[in-house]
Amino acid sequence: MPEKFPGQDEVELARLIREVTIGHVAFATEVAAAAEHWPTVLPIAICYDPGQDQRSFSLLLHGSTGSRWLRTLSQGGPASVAVTALDGLVVARSAFESSMHYRSAILFGRCSEVPEVDKGCTLDLITESLIPGRVAELRTPTRKELAATLVLRMAITDWSYKVSDGWPEDPDEDVAGPAWAGVLPRRTGFAAALPTADLRPGIDVPDSVARLLAD
Amino acid sequence: MPEKFPGQDEVELARLIREVTIGHVAFATEVAAAAEHWPTVLPIAICYDPGQDQRSFSLLLHGSTGSRWLRTLSQGGPASVAVTALDGLVVARSAFESSMHYRSAILFGRCSEVPEVDKGCTLDLITESLIPGRVAELRTPTRKELAATLVLRMAITDWSYKVSDGWPEDPDEDVAGPAWAGVLPRRTGFAAALPTADLRPGIDVPDSVARLLAD
Repeated sequence: MPEKFPGQDEVELARLIREVTIGHVAFATEVAAAAEHWPTVLPIAICYDPGQDQRSFSLLLHGSTGSRWLRTLSQGGPASVAVTALDGLVVARSAFESSMHYRSAILFGRCSEVPEVDKGCTLDLITESLIPGRVAELRTPTRKELAATLVLRMAITDWSYKVSDGWPEDPDEDVAGPAWAGVLPRRTGFAAALPTADLRPGIDVPDSVARLLAD
Repeated sequence: MPEKFPGQDEVELARLIREVTIGHVAFATEVAAAAEHWPTVLPIAICYDPGQDQRSFSLLLHGSTGSRWLRTLSQGGPASVAVTALDGLVVARSAFESSMHYRSAILFGRCSEVPEVDKGCTLDLITESLIPGRVAELRTPTRKELAATLVLRMAITDWSYKVSDGWPEDPDEDVAGPAWAGVLPRRTGFAAALPTADLRPGIDVPDSVARLLAD
């Protein structure tokens, strides 16, 4: 059986997903009045799952069982997800040459519901992707919580990954002109860990949160 | 004629669009092999245009005339755009209650091509939305640059706007437990203005860029 050795792009993709945490999933919703399928887009937390057969990977999505759009997705229609990091602004000497630094992945596939028996460990994977180390700090989910949560696996059948990280490329006549040009790198991160008002005394910021702040 | 007085939501939406600059547009692409319309999602710079008739607003999109997906959008099929800001992480005392702070708008409409005669001033609006004050610092676009740029107007027919900014809402038994809970506000901004290697001596960082850095 051929083994999959993830290429650099897939490693970069996994890193991008962990970093941006939110993807945008597109799918068709039926518009009753128009008897038409209207492409809809939804922001949703995403988690990369390398998969066990070493030949494919998937995205994990989750939300309330009450979410109409998530239920539509669970029916397995064609869907796509964009994962985008805006890394900076390219300020050129003309509007035309100005652009952005970004990392952008577009993934195609279909969703299916994760069965009840696998929900707990799949949700743990999702929690660990969002806040590494958090699962060990928390009680396990209750049966009621699991029942209220819809977990979807989107098996990725096709995807692309693109990076834009260059400098302005102005023509000579603009370089000779009076305008400034350069790159403005964008920074993101967490500013602080604000404790909730009802936090009991003596409970410190946990390691998982401290690591997020240090990133 | 009834005048539109934008509600607070529309003011907030306009601010959100200026802030995040990138939207995710969903539309149907024809998959030749499958003879099927596959919902596709594309990250793209977006600009809010309040419109002149005071009763509706639109989004402005732009890109290369060579972009296949932008040409598909220009044909006026049903489309939607998500505008999303991730503002923070809600770290609750259980995975179930943990969530995110966000501002999220979903907009529905159809795109049409901005005619040649309006392209210049529409692109100026877009540039000013991305880098306020930049147009006055730049030469005007050339005829060739305008010809290479596709500018789309998406007239918004329906939209929603949702904000999540609350604190963890843990049940009493979790509040009495050992886990920490709180909110991690997310910060974004530009870290620096790095001049391009071929910048001529004596050209300072312009006011438009200095203002972006100060934000």
